Amino acid sequence: MTRFALTVEFDGRPFMGWQRQAHGPSVQQAIEEAALAVTGEQVVVHCAGRTDAGVHGLGMRAHLDIAKPIGAFRLSEALNARLRPAPVAILDCIEVPEDFHARFSCLARSYEYRIVNRRSPLTFEKGLAWQIPQPLDAAAMHAGAQRLVGAHDFTTFRSAHCQAASPLKSIDWFEVVRDGERVIARVEARSFLHHQVRSMIGCLALVGMGRWSVDDLDDALRAADRERLGLNAPPDGLFFVRALYAGDRLKRDASSTCVDQRN
Amino acid sequence: MTRFALTVEFDGRPFMGWQRQAHGPSVQQAIEEAALAVTGEQVVVHCAGRTDAGVHGLGMRAHLDIAKPIGAFRLSEALNARLRPAPVAILDCIEVPEDFHARFSCLARSYEYRIVNRRSPLTFEKGLAWQIPQPLDAAAMHAGAQRLVGAHDFTTFRSAHCQAASPLKSIDWFEVVRDGERVIARVEARSFLHHQVRSMIGCLALVGMGRWSVDDLDDALRAADRERLGLNAPPDGLFFVRALYAGDRLKRDASSTCVDQRN
Repeated sequence: MTRFALTVEFDGRPFMGWQRQAHGPSVQQAIEEAALAVTGEQVVVHCAGRTDAGVHGLGMRAHLDIAKPIGAFRLSEALNARLRPAPVAILDCIEVPEDFHARFSCLARSYEYRIVNRRSPLTFEKGLAWQIPQPLDAAAMHAGAQRLVGAHDFTTFRSAHCQAASPLKSIDWFEVVRDGERVIARVEARSFLHHQVRSMIGCLALVGMGRWSVDDLDDALRAADRERLGLNAPPDGLFFVRALYAGDRLKRDASSTCVDQRN
Repeated sequence: MTRFALTVEFDGRPFMGWQRQAHGPSVQQAIEEAALAVTGEQVVVHCAGRTDAGVHGLGMRAHLDIAKPIGAFRLSEALNARLRPAPVAILDCIEVPEDFHARFSCLARSYEYRIVNRRSPLTFEKGLAWQIPQPLDAAAMHAGAQRLVGAHDFTTFRSAHCQAASPLKSIDWFEVVRDGERVIARVEARSFLHHQVRSMIGCLALVGMGRWSVDDLDDALRAADRERLGLNAPPDGLFFVRALYAGDRLKRDASSTCVDQRN
């Protein structure tokens, strides 16, 4: 049995989310069926972090175990061939030790949230961004995001369906930048609560619109009360960017959102 | 009668091209039908440069004449409302003098061509880029592009269906840059022959793959013979970026491909 770690890119629009569902297509099912076609084996694919319906992946990490002797490159090529025409691509495939686990070995996860701040409807990015017509103050959103950095009780920003044992999480990094008509948020933490990123983005959008002050955001956080959530952002703009593992050498730079600040 | 100039973004994937066709949807038809719904008038929309099936627009310019009294902002909003769900968006709408003509007043046109240089299949960019699996030397492609800059007989890079009176054209600017796995070409000229950009990109890709030298490209250009065309690039990666008119103040910078070098 050989364990392989995959880096997966997927367009979440046609999927019910990462996790296998009884009543609709999922990314997990697409990869497991491709693996079955390639190897004849019923495998289970584990990922770094499950995503909701309509959420996308730029660099999701996942692992699976294969009994059939096959090299990582051949496996990657064969999976990609079988995945067509689903919008799922294996970007990278490497052999890993059997104690590697995409979810439990993951040290940090980063997400990007894309807002297109314009009146005109979306064309290319329909389902790939949140269109907000009223002008957003990205600097105010960035200032608000800094209030969320650090260890907090994120109950306000947690889905009622969240199964985590504790609402305590620690945000390592959160930035909001404007690039022309686009407002991009990048956030990193060891892990997130269910809907936490979308809930934080929704409230930061209120700050950007001027409907909330940065102090209002702070108050909502400290209330630790889901009733204080201002707005939940749609899944469209959310991208799982990267999962970090021990041994990964990652740098945060202009084009990258994930960093190992522990080095 | 008031003349309005539109700036139009469109995803070319579902269209037979810009121009109205008897047997399939076109961008022109979509806008004309939206204008009919808004004003009750049968209008003709003229654009800066017709695009082929599957080619996209980031900032196409077009004009139309409306008799009904309506302001530019209201017209833009109403057209966008009627265009849904077609992936066509009016980004800007301004009143212009009656002697403005989107095609005949245009001083320069710029295109961008997007290549994704990787083995993995495309997900988000399916139909929006040309995937080339073998490694491309973008610096060699840029060097090749410089041989095409200036005034030349572009017969080699001209479709058999091209209706232009002369094969003589002058390329003002042509750059090829790499950005991670993406190779982006940007080119500007007063006007182009039919298929000229795709033909030039196809041959530059041969240079990038090492199958042609820069001198081979030069020879093909100077032969002025369509038989010498090495490769025609698919429409997927081609974007009409911008049309330039007298009075436009445009700067070429890192994020912009179009410039008025005449100022």
